[in-house]
Amino acid sequence: MSKGLQTLLTQTPEEGFKLAVKLAQKGIEVTQPSEEIREMLRPVYSRNADSLTAASQVVAIHFQTVAFANNYWN
Amino acid sequence: MSKGLQTLLTQTPEEGFKLAVKLAQKGIEVTQPSEEIREMLRPVYSRNADSLTAASQVVAIHFQTVAFANNYWN
Amino acid sequence: MSKGLQTLLTQTPEEGFKLAVKLAQKGIEVTQPSEEIREMLRPVYSRNADSLTAASQVVAIHFQTVAFANNYWN
Amino acid sequence: MSKGLQTLLTQTPEEGFKLAVKLAQKGIEVTQPSEEIREMLRPVYSRNADSLTAASQVVAIHFQTVAFANNYWN
Amino acid sequence: MSKGLQTLLTQTPEEGFKLAVKLAQKGIEVTQPSEEIREMLRPVYSRNADSLTAASQVVAIHFQTVAFANNYWN
Amino acid sequence: MSKGLQTLLTQTPEEGFKLAVKLAQKGIEVTQPSEEIREMLRPVYSRNADSLTAASQVVAIHFQTVAFANNYWN
Repeated sequence: MSKGLQTLLTQTPEEGFKLAVKLAQKGIEVTQPSEEIREMLRPVYSRNADSLTAASQVVAIHFQTVAFANNYWN
Repeated sequence: MSKGLQTLLTQTPEEGFKLAVKLAQKGIEVTQPSEEIREMLRPVYSRNADSLTAASQVVAIHFQTVAFANNYWN
Repeated sequence: MSKGLQTLLTQTPEEGFKLAVKLAQKGIEVTQPSEEIREMLRPVYSRNADSLTAASQVVAIHFQTVAFANNYWN
Repeated sequence: MSKGLQTLLTQTPEEGFKLAVKLAQKGIEVTQPSEEIREMLRPVYSRNADSLTAASQVVAIHFQTVAFANNYWN
Repeated sequence: MSKGLQTLLTQTPEEGFKLAVKLAQKGIEVTQPSEEIREMLRPVYSRNADSLTAASQVVAIHFQTVAFANNYWN
Repeated sequence: MSKGLQTLLTQTPEEGFKLAVKLAQKGIEVTQPSEEIREMLRPVYSRNADSLTAASQVVAIHFQTVAFANNYWN
C-alpha cells in the first residue's frame, strides 16, 4: 500500500479480509506514523483480550465495506 | 478456514452465524497469531461480562455482512 | 433456538426485537457456553449502567439486520 | 410500547428519533427489567459524559434503522 | 431544533455534518436534559482524547444516516 | 476544509480514506475547537493502543460512507 490504496476489489473473501486488516492498520498509522512506537505497543495490546476484540471490530467494519464493494464475491 | 475464507455463502442463518463467529476470531488471530496466548487469555475474558458483550458485538457486525451476502436466506 | 437459527423472518417488529436479543445472547454463549457462569455474571452487569448500554448496543446492531431481513415489516 | 413494538413507521424525523430512543431503552429493559434499579442507576450515568455518549450511540444506531424504514421521510 | 427535527435534507455535506452533530447532541439531551449539568461536564470530556473520539464516533454514525438521506449530495 | 465540506466525491480510494480521516478529525474539532488543546492531548493518546484502535474505528465508519458515496470507485 506504499502508493496508496488503489482499489477495493479483491479476488476472494480471504483477500478481502486481508484488505480490511490493512485498512484498520492504515487508520492507526494516520494517528501514529512511527512504526517504532507502534511495534513498542504491540506486546501489550496483543496480550489484552479487550484490545484484541476492539481491533477485530475495526476489521469487521472495514470488511463490511470491502465485501459490499466486491458484491460479496457472488 | 485453513485454506482461507472462500465464500460468504451458507445454507442457513445458523451456519451464517457460525461464519460470523469465525470471522470475529479471524480478526483476533491477525493481531495475536499465537493460539497458546489466545487460550491463556480466555479464562479471564470469558468470565467478564463486558468482554463477552464486546465479543458479541463483533459477531453482530460480521453477521450483518454474512446475512446480506446470503440475501438474508430468503 | 435449540435446533439453531432457522430464519430471520418474524411476524412483527416486536418479535424481531426479541430475535435481536436472542442473537446478542447467542453471541455471548459462543464465548461462554456455561449457563452457570453467565448467570453468575448477571447480578453485576445488570446493575451497571455502562454494561447495560453496551448490551443494548449489540441488540441494536442485530435489530438492523433483522429489520432489513423483514423489509422493515412494511 | 406496552403491547409491544407494532411498527417502525413514524410521521416525522422527530417522532422517529423518539422511537429510536425507546428502542435503546427497550434494549436495556431486556437485561434489567426492574424499573426501580434502572432509576437508581440514572443519577450516576446521567452525570458521566462517557456514559451519555455511549447512550447517544445506541440511539444513533437505532435511528439508522428507523430512518431507513421510513425512507428517510422523503 | 426547538420545534423538533423536521427533515434530514440539507443543502451541502457541510450542513449535513452539522445536522449529524446536532443529532448526536440530541441523543445526549434525552438522557441528561439539564443544560447546566451538560455544560458542567464539558471541561472534563473535552480534554479527554478517548471521550472526544467516542463523541466523534456518534457523529460518524449519524452522518451515515444523513448522507444516505441526501443521496450523498450527488 | 476551511470553507466546509463541499463534496464526498474523491478520485481514488486513497483520497477517500484521507477524507474519512478528515471527517473523523472534524468530529473531534466540534467538541474541542482549540487546536492547542488537541495537540496537547496527542502525545498521550497516540501512544495508547486502545486510543489508536478507537480512532481507527471512527475512520472506518466514515470510510463506509465515503466509499458508498463514490460507488466504491468501481
